[in-house]
Amino acid sequence: MFKQFSINGGVTAPEGFFADGVSAGLKKDEQLDLAFIYSDKVANVGAIFTSNRFQAAPLKHFQREDIKETNFLLINSKNANAMTGEKGIEDIETIFSSLSQKLPIKNPIMSSTGVIGVHLPTDKIIAGAEKFDLNSKNGEMASKAIMTTDAYPKEIAVKVELPDGRTYSVGGMAKGAGMINPSMATMLAFITTDLQIDSETIKSLLQETTRTTFNAISVDGDTSTNDSVFLLANGKKEFYDEISFKATLQMVMKYLALQIVKDGEGAKKMVSFHVTGAKSDSDAEKVAKTLGDSLLVKTALFGEDPNWGRIAMGVGASGVEVDETRLTISYEDVTVLKDGENLFDDEVEQRAYKVMSRPEFTVYCDLGIGDGSFKSYACDLGYEYVKINADYRT
Amino acid sequence: MFKQFSINGGVTAPEGFFADGVSAGLKKDEQLDLAFIYSDKVANVGAIFTSNRFQAAPLKHFQREDIKETNFLLINSKNANAMTGEKGIEDIETIFSSLSQKLPIKNPIMSSTGVIGVHLPTDKIIAGAEKFDLNSKNGEMASKAIMTTDAYPKEIAVKVELPDGRTYSVGGMAKGAGMINPSMATMLAFITTDLQIDSETIKSLLQETTRTTFNAISVDGDTSTNDSVFLLANGKKEFYDEISFKATLQMVMKYLALQIVKDGEGAKKMVSFHVTGAKSDSDAEKVAKTLGDSLLVKTALFGEDPNWGRIAMGVGASGVEVDETRLTISYEDVTVLKDGENLFDDEVEQRAYKVMSRPEFTVYCDLGIGDGSFKSYACDLGYEYVKINADYRT
Repeated sequence: MFKQFSINGGVTAPEGFFADGVSAGLKKDEQLDLAFIYSDKVANVGAIFTSNRFQAAPLKHFQREDIKETNFLLINSKNANAMTGEKGIEDIETIFSSLSQKLPIKNPIMSSTGVIGVHLPTDKIIAGAEKFDLNSKNGEMASKAIMTTDAYPKEIAVKVELPDGRTYSVGGMAKGAGMINPSMATMLAFITTDLQIDSETIKSLLQETTRTTFNAISVDGDTSTNDSVFLLANGKKEFYDEISFKATLQMVMKYLALQIVKDGEGAKKMVSFHVTGAKSDSDAEKVAKTLGDSLLVKTALFGEDPNWGRIAMGVGASGVEVDETRLTISYEDVTVLKDGENLFDDEVEQRAYKVMSRPEFTVYCDLGIGDGSFKSYACDLGYEYVKINADYRT
Repeated sequence: MFKQFSINGGVTAPEGFFADGVSAGLKKDEQLDLAFIYSDKVANVGAIFTSNRFQAAPLKHFQREDIKETNFLLINSKNANAMTGEKGIEDIETIFSSLSQKLPIKNPIMSSTGVIGVHLPTDKIIAGAEKFDLNSKNGEMASKAIMTTDAYPKEIAVKVELPDGRTYSVGGMAKGAGMINPSMATMLAFITTDLQIDSETIKSLLQETTRTTFNAISVDGDTSTNDSVFLLANGKKEFYDEISFKATLQMVMKYLALQIVKDGEGAKKMVSFHVTGAKSDSDAEKVAKTLGDSLLVKTALFGEDPNWGRIAMGVGASGVEVDETRLTISYEDVTVLKDGENLFDDEVEQRAYKVMSRPEFTVYCDLGIGDGSFKSYACDLGYEYVKINADYRT
């Protein structure tokens, strides 16, 4: 069996990858707002993007150029370059055509997050990028520069050792916070590896793994124009090991997805909705996501109120086949509804309250009619969410 | 042309209808919690119910009994009698079998709203109902007794005068507040008329009119187990006038629906999303409802921030056909995006801020690619919503 070790370095952990973050003056007070990921060997790349019909300019640029290999990603926060029309794409071209005179970049890719509908300050971004030192291994600085309302940076790196002694690494960073929902949202994630993987395989790996990771989380049910997950494989290791990489990619993406939920705008809790016994996996997925999206469920989490009626409401509202006499709901090991029968008494209620007071717990929801299962992840929703989003633009 | 006059009396305005509200001890401190509507002539009745797969016991009871005419509706607040299994239905039968010994009721109907998963205190309800005076014309007391987190009662009555001098009336009351979404939610509405209308016609009238009224509003996007709209026609007037009644029913239902939005939990604003230029009416409906449901749109309304990027985000997230270069967004007469071009400058922004500060306004959203249109209605979402729903059960 292969072994996995947690290591430092984030996206720069795999061989040949470099990254850093600088202040380009997009945010106030010299906060970090511009990052790069550079590979000294051209990497194969694949990406998956938001389901929002208005895709932001960087997403259009990537798809129009049909980029399959690259050595440079430029990421800015504060401005989403979304709803900016053709000029939005031209701005990206302007930036890269200027930078290519100073930096050895090939098929550069841009990624943006922030306010919608404002054109990029290209001069500031070019001037900022000229400060880059492509030999930097400052993954953490990069992960800080891509933050918007995130409370903390999110990065991870894993070293994998195969039974025959060969090793490789996978690194990742992400930003999240708001507009997070099961169809992806203002969420950017960048994953690097020194394995040799072709871009078609990269794409199908991302699609497969996203369903149970980035697409299984919900902060507020809104879907942004900018979501992207990128995976870069620079082949420094000149081999590919499918089994260990799939497991490691799943782990890295799940870790980053859960970090996003935990750092949901104003979130104090991270709750898993583990749905079983549905007629199909897809039914279970609908239920788990309805629960994760429901405002009434999320405010009950915030209020630490074991109000299982709202869980039942969400199950019924999901529209899948249900049987009231078979529904069982538990908060961790405290079963509050068993085959449709309310088990609440003072003691059960007290135990349920205790579970609700934890920062992390699982709500189990068994529909009792089939074998379908799915697990979604959501945060609570409280005053802070409202505060952040009532004031975001200003 | 027919004439419409606003009159007093709510559901008791039409001839032969009586109503009142009492305290049965379901709520604390002798608050009103039990209401009736009685007709001294048996009325034809039709209803439409929630799309939630877990329908509450009263909804099941109505459908199981296949009630097409009645003279008595009993409505309680505080307890939804939902997720209460067969016993929930038996409790209704117990209540009515006891009441039928004292009151001249025929095919009685029950309607409930409140907490899910708790059995009805049948003794309290029977004792409370025995206090009813079926000769009361206290529509306002009834409209108060059905409230849960509603801040104020919602009722309306209209007298219609036809060109030939004949007259009839339509009365209505509703409760709303939370779990309100386009698929209906903990929303109860009761409409009475002294026209002669058969129950099949009643049902199709309700279905037709609900789409643009109760199903066009959103408070929080959640769908309750108990939503119901009832229409009772007791035929005291021995005629039916389709044209004037359709118009009046539309007006009454729209009025009650908007009252529910205005009284959304913690709501300070009532905003209409008027979507035009979509490929079809159904596309426009999807966009208008996505906007009304979006947490980011609702918190921007609360923050009075003319952040049109979130409107664009919602349009794109709705999944319908769009063209970025044709989208136009206006706050009342202040156009902020014209054919995909951002018109924001200091002056436009100031004018947009001014619109946002109003308690009621319309956001116009033209997709520019077809003739489809739809109008939805939503409230803002602020701290009060969180407060009410974090603490609701306790």
